[in-house]
Amino acid sequence: MGIVLGDNSYGKAETRLVFVDRAAPQHRIVDFNVTTALSGDLAATHLTGDNTDVLPTDSQKNTVFAFARDGVGEPEDFAARLARHFVESQPAIRSATVDIESYGWDRMTVGGAPAHHSFVRAAGTRTASVTYDGTLSVSSGITDLVVLNTTGSEFWGYPKDPYTTLAETKDRVLATAVTARWRHRAGSDWAVSHAETLRLLLETFAEVHSLSLQQTLYAMGRRVLEEREEVAEIRLELPNKHHIPVDLSPFGLDNPGVVFHATDRPYGLIQATVTRDDA
Amino acid sequence: MGIVLGDNSYGKAETRLVFVDRAAPQHRIVDFNVTTALSGDLAATHLTGDNTDVLPTDSQKNTVFAFARDGVGEPEDFAARLARHFVESQPAIRSATVDIESYGWDRMTVGGAPAHHSFVRAAGTRTASVTYDGTLSVSSGITDLVVLNTTGSEFWGYPKDPYTTLAETKDRVLATAVTARWRHRAGSDWAVSHAETLRLLLETFAEVHSLSLQQTLYAMGRRVLEEREEVAEIRLELPNKHHIPVDLSPFGLDNPGVVFHATDRPYGLIQATVTRDDA
Amino acid sequence: MGIVLGDNSYGKAETRLVFVDRAAPQHRIVDFNVTTALSGDLAATHLTGDNTDVLPTDSQKNTVFAFARDGVGEPEDFAARLARHFVESQPAIRSATVDIESYGWDRMTVGGAPAHHSFVRAAGTRTASVTYDGTLSVSSGITDLVVLNTTGSEFWGYPKDPYTTLAETKDRVLATAVTARWRHRAGSDWAVSHAETLRLLLETFAEVHSLSLQQTLYAMGRRVLEEREEVAEIRLELPNKHHIPVDLSPFGLDNPGVVFHATDRPYGLIQATVTRDDA
Amino acid sequence: MGIVLGDNSYGKAETRLVFVDRAAPQHRIVDFNVTTALSGDLAATHLTGDNTDVLPTDSQKNTVFAFARDGVGEPEDFAARLARHFVESQPAIRSATVDIESYGWDRMTVGGAPAHHSFVRAAGTRTASVTYDGTLSVSSGITDLVVLNTTGSEFWGYPKDPYTTLAETKDRVLATAVTARWRHRAGSDWAVSHAETLRLLLETFAEVHSLSLQQTLYAMGRRVLEEREEVAEIRLELPNKHHIPVDLSPFGLDNPGVVFHATDRPYGLIQATVTRDDA
Repeated sequence: MGIVLGDNSYGKAETRLVFVDRAAPQHRIVDFNVTTALSGDLAATHLTGDNTDVLPTDSQKNTVFAFARDGVGEPEDFAARLARHFVESQPAIRSATVDIESYGWDRMTVGGAPAHHSFVRAAGTRTASVTYDGTLSVSSGITDLVVLNTTGSEFWGYPKDPYTTLAETKDRVLATAVTARWRHRAGSDWAVSHAETLRLLLETFAEVHSLSLQQTLYAMGRRVLEEREEVAEIRLELPNKHHIPVDLSPFGLDNPGVVFHATDRPYGLIQATVTRDDA
Repeated sequence: MGIVLGDNSYGKAETRLVFVDRAAPQHRIVDFNVTTALSGDLAATHLTGDNTDVLPTDSQKNTVFAFARDGVGEPEDFAARLARHFVESQPAIRSATVDIESYGWDRMTVGGAPAHHSFVRAAGTRTASVTYDGTLSVSSGITDLVVLNTTGSEFWGYPKDPYTTLAETKDRVLATAVTARWRHRAGSDWAVSHAETLRLLLETFAEVHSLSLQQTLYAMGRRVLEEREEVAEIRLELPNKHHIPVDLSPFGLDNPGVVFHATDRPYGLIQATVTRDDA
Repeated sequence: MGIVLGDNSYGKAETRLVFVDRAAPQHRIVDFNVTTALSGDLAATHLTGDNTDVLPTDSQKNTVFAFARDGVGEPEDFAARLARHFVESQPAIRSATVDIESYGWDRMTVGGAPAHHSFVRAAGTRTASVTYDGTLSVSSGITDLVVLNTTGSEFWGYPKDPYTTLAETKDRVLATAVTARWRHRAGSDWAVSHAETLRLLLETFAEVHSLSLQQTLYAMGRRVLEEREEVAEIRLELPNKHHIPVDLSPFGLDNPGVVFHATDRPYGLIQATVTRDDA
Repeated sequence: MGIVLGDNSYGKAETRLVFVDRAAPQHRIVDFNVTTALSGDLAATHLTGDNTDVLPTDSQKNTVFAFARDGVGEPEDFAARLARHFVESQPAIRSATVDIESYGWDRMTVGGAPAHHSFVRAAGTRTASVTYDGTLSVSSGITDLVVLNTTGSEFWGYPKDPYTTLAETKDRVLATAVTARWRHRAGSDWAVSHAETLRLLLETFAEVHSLSLQQTLYAMGRRVLEEREEVAEIRLELPNKHHIPVDLSPFGLDNPGVVFHATDRPYGLIQATVTRDDA
């Protein structure tokens, strides 16, 4: 019985690339956090420290910056360019995954007019993940998108085991920080696809009368698959950011769903994939 | 020569209060992080552990929730209610400071119409700090407001000591995370005052052609004092979030101000108060 | 073509349990962060909001606390108790995974003697992950264990592509934050197994003359498999926390490997599994 | 009434300096996070963007690295060297403050013997803050030192106002993350002074039978002033990291002080200075 190398990869994490497009008087800005991960015939460096096939992670970082010189475009496209490059230019590399976080910036308004070169950082992060191993696999996503419904959420009818003390409720605050990632089965206009998918996720969150966070999650995913032909499947991770109604009765006060304590930990965590039955 | 108790305070930090206003069909939401700090005749508990005058921090937390039952309003008003209460109800307490972080939520849009009960967390945090010691002192502020100019910023003409290697520049990216706090010399409509002060800070950041971040800071503060009579003085803390142009020449590429590395540490840190000469 | 529910789970994340063992005059303390995740026949709640099979995450939290009443023991054992319980007591639940972070506390010394009831939080976090689906699968691990070699690390002989500017080095600082997770193929004395595995990881990090971080990683994993029969395989994630020698030549100074800039981002990230060829 | 510049400073925050002392076969390591802040005649850059007197923060960073070339020593000494340098070499600068966080590393043990060049990051952070404005003012401190007593802490006898629901207790867990800063009135062996002060703080925390966290705080400060002649005064900030006994009665279980929920927010926050009456 021997000891062997299993799955492995290496790369450069979190290269913070900012690109300014000065082509028009109204500048545009792209703000990315790029992570590369390469795998392939890399046994030598693990077993003997022979680095013949180990393109330095520093070179990977340089590639990110150099490739940006001609323009960056959508994160899915930029990630694909990089992933293809590493596989096609490095003989030992069989697969490359490039993950990008894209931070949003809103153009400032000055005196009612859009500013030419001034921006404010927006909430939420768009993500893209592309793997190239001869074939391209493209996913898009979002993270850190915090949403809340003040009503329209119930939770009851659950089993009561000996450790259950939770009271059933027909009206609660439902809040979560959406992390979603959807895999594309076809290319598309990535910007339009992302904006529309995001719109569908938010609108569904707002419209569903929720009996459980699982129901909300599934409805969000199903809606995306129904409306976006290019999406093969979607994975959602929804922490249940509990808002506990405060018991004000010791102070002679009622609390008709108005005063809540927003707690940090513990929190529910709901995770599911919604997919196509041929996916 | 003896050992004595000096300045001291105690309180409850970071009570996370969420208030839902259901009065109208379109719900409204208030999301606060409340910190109380009391001081006064508190030597006994320090010297002997006699807690006769130590209102528990747990009671302070309860007070935050109970006071919210009737509505919260602007953070400056809610902080003042609390601060007055602790001083007026606790004989030993001479001064109370209540600090509030207020997190913004944008109403969602569904099918083009504003949602009734659904919200998305916005970027940036509004702050208020109120001290009551018989007299009210009210400050307002913002924090974590990240802004960026893609051009219109220079830095040159500085002294070159033996440790100076920085190249002068007539065009750089200028980015910062604004923390500001302004003291009021008169009451006002807090919501309007805050919105207008924030607008003035942002517009000035966008409009100033900057020769140093100090110049931008001072212009931001001066503009607020010029336009907002109710503001006595303003303190700004501006980290210089460096965006370093990447040297692409090793790759045979120029970089005409388009590709930047956004670095984390170290960072410049500029801090100043802009005040009135009678303040 | 239909839309269907894929992989899913739900549970309570980050229940912060502290257990005090008062049995002996020298108290002992256990400090856990417990996350439960259940999966099984949970389609109903996703599709229709029928919660008949959804044991509340609040009950899962309560179970963590209640089970601790009789003592906690090693994190692997406590996780296994919980995982078994959820599967065996909830008809719809087919699999339960319980992840535990265990924070270390050092007993204080007072006047040279060990304190009876006073502790200082130590660095590093021990982890355990147990899945029960009829069979138990037990993994142990560590995270946030930051280690550094001041010498004994080289990096050279790598391919130079057009984006490579990195200089080869025969002597560099090597620093990383070890995250490791090893799967057991047999039960054992978890405390001894963990302590010995940790010792082997650290000693190997110290002893290997490293030609690449991959070589160090593999040697660490191999050593554990060689010495610990109960370990089936081990996965290591090693961020390369770069320490860049500062170029002091502009100031007329050399830098013989003494002055370094510890950078945050980007960082190399090396990940690999070392396994047995029959695992 | 005019608008004027008030208090201001600028500098470089968080320069991450690591120094390796290779003089002996057993290497030593110094790991600092250095922040510089300069103030003086800096009106010009604020008012007109004239940078004649603004030594770049980049130069300040370079100075940190260059000064380290000859050895670093204790953080108090290194901060003093830097602070003096900026004031004495820059005509416009009247005062410089240098803050240092010093991270601890424990030497690894390999086969029972101390390693020559391998280290593990320890918990807790030592701090130093030095201001030079013609006179040196030196403070030392610690931060992020988390300590816990499993017993020996009571809290009762406090006022019960209408918002008080807290139950009195004769035995609770007391946990806090110590941040302390003490000002020196005389130079001393900084390393010995720091180690001894830290020992006194920890031992006092362990030994005091506490009726309030304020009492513990004051005892800790007083002990330092009693034993360390070189310390003029000490400021302590002690968050009360609440460990709430879990009510297990719904599950038919008692809880004799063994099962606790460690909560995040809100938390008590106790702050006080202990000083000499001639300080």
